[in-house]
Amino acid sequence: MSIRIGLMGYGNLSRGVEAAIKQSDDLELVAVFTRRDPSSVKVKTEGVPVLSEGEIEAWTDKIDVLVLGGGSATDLPGQTPKYAKLFNVVDSFDTHARIPEHFANVDAAAKESGKLGVISIGWDPGLFSLMRMLSTAVLPVGKNYTFWGRGVSQGHSDAIRRIEGVQDARQYTVPVESSVNSVRNGENPDLTTRQKHTRECFVVAKEGADLARIEKEIKEMPNYFDEYDTTVNFISQEELDKNHKGLPHGGFVIRSGETGEGTKHIVEFNLKLESNPEFTGAVIAAYARAAFRLNNEGATGCKTIFDIPVSYLSALSDEELRKTLL
Amino acid sequence: MSIRIGLMGYGNLSRGVEAAIKQSDDLELVAVFTRRDPSSVKVKTEGVPVLSEGEIEAWTDKIDVLVLGGGSATDLPGQTPKYAKLFNVVDSFDTHARIPEHFANVDAAAKESGKLGVISIGWDPGLFSLMRMLSTAVLPVGKNYTFWGRGVSQGHSDAIRRIEGVQDARQYTVPVESSVNSVRNGENPDLTTRQKHTRECFVVAKEGADLARIEKEIKEMPNYFDEYDTTVNFISQEELDKNHKGLPHGGFVIRSGETGEGTKHIVEFNLKLESNPEFTGAVIAAYARAAFRLNNEGATGCKTIFDIPVSYLSALSDEELRKTLL
Repeated sequence: MSIRIGLMGYGNLSRGVEAAIKQSDDLELVAVFTRRDPSSVKVKTEGVPVLSEGEIEAWTDKIDVLVLGGGSATDLPGQTPKYAKLFNVVDSFDTHARIPEHFANVDAAAKESGKLGVISIGWDPGLFSLMRMLSTAVLPVGKNYTFWGRGVSQGHSDAIRRIEGVQDARQYTVPVESSVNSVRNGENPDLTTRQKHTRECFVVAKEGADLARIEKEIKEMPNYFDEYDTTVNFISQEELDKNHKGLPHGGFVIRSGETGEGTKHIVEFNLKLESNPEFTGAVIAAYARAAFRLNNEGATGCKTIFDIPVSYLSALSDEELRKTLL
Repeated sequence: MSIRIGLMGYGNLSRGVEAAIKQSDDLELVAVFTRRDPSSVKVKTEGVPVLSEGEIEAWTDKIDVLVLGGGSATDLPGQTPKYAKLFNVVDSFDTHARIPEHFANVDAAAKESGKLGVISIGWDPGLFSLMRMLSTAVLPVGKNYTFWGRGVSQGHSDAIRRIEGVQDARQYTVPVESSVNSVRNGENPDLTTRQKHTRECFVVAKEGADLARIEKEIKEMPNYFDEYDTTVNFISQEELDKNHKGLPHGGFVIRSGETGEGTKHIVEFNLKLESNPEFTGAVIAAYARAAFRLNNEGATGCKTIFDIPVSYLSALSDEELRKTLL
């Protein structure tokens, strides 16, 4: 019998989870819930009903794990604890500063219901966190570096689109190669924000807009751009649609550590992703499997990627894993 | 109170574990056991007794985890199950084909004694296995590649030293760069043994030895060299001592996978190690901590790197980990 997955929301991330479910015989998408008009939402998996969020309580016996596809700013702080009272849940909560609070809320709700909630799943937070933690435990003397990109930051692209005179935009976060090389060489540099990443913007201006003003507004935007070296390229909508419609991303986590008498070691974890939401969805699908299996064995409350043995992510038996992948 | 570690054997690997214990306030080396004359073994940690292997039974209440520093060919198949009857144990068993059998033996012994045995810990098997498993679970459609090096293979160096006329030798395993690049580019090549690695040998010949014969014997040695492109460099003992005395190693595990409609992703885990035994020892020390904590919570039997949540590897509390590394 397959593990029955429900999706709350049907944006990019949920569609990524749906694509991952299709690749796994032991996972089955059984329902999609939305705040939009359900008849306006067309899912890719044949025969899967789209329902209003309000109808979800009727599904408690028909869904093994509910994946929450919403955003960290306004959706997940309320939704994850709320639905952990009814279902095993997985989310991709990524507001680092609020993780302790979110964990506590989900933990209390899930312990009360006897369900399991897995939070902050994806690649950062997620696989990158796992690698930071693991390599720090193995090499307690050392330094961690995280670089993101080259990839599209949706938040930064949105910020540019809000500027007057901008029709469309894509922003790429780009690691500074000389800094990356210095870290890989074990030089343990202290890097400022500016030394770690640059920002490349591709902007479609509305007809007659003041390009110089737009460029200035982008480069001086607080938090988003002012601490970075930013380049702005004005291009046509056709060119943006042709060359910049994907959502590639990636990055790397590097631990530069020492053992013994100054013996150096570099541990690096590196992702190159053609689609950020599809890869994030694939990670979430694997942790949905784990959530179901752990809860089946009696585990309840909130867990993070630090708490879950990787064997729970695989559809293969432990014997098979030891034989083929150890 | 610290976790009390005992070491069985005092070779390169055990010395690596000893160095790692020194970096962790919560770990303490309490005894070293040897088959040699204990008076001939000088350990680096002050005040730690060196004892004959036969004296170990008196230490069951004084050691929390026994690390087995021996080899997979003849030591560990007997030692790990034997000592799992008395202690929590960790080993680095690396004969892939015999892992199922070794697991079963350790599992039976440790279940009977109520102890925990963790086998096949290090970087391959070990962290590389973890990465292969994790990335395969996340990207079920794809291909795994493991490259080793550039680094010293002690087995291959020993094999060269057994040739008549050879005084000393070091063998480096080197990944073929064009193949690595092809994998990193997502081309998913089918690679033969020869296409994945080359072998570089630095050989000190005895005076008057027949160099041409030595080179031929190396290059044609079955299993070790005959399937590889091998280069042989004859050098002086001085040069070998000066430039080739370290035991650097490393390598990378790459998963090249797809989601959705042919969307490509590359997941890479990469190690550059100045000392193979020191890094392996550091991994083992972290898993010794995990073995103790898991057994304290009631877990018994045999576990591998697939079965242990990474949070158990760290001396930090779960709250601290979530706050600082998630």
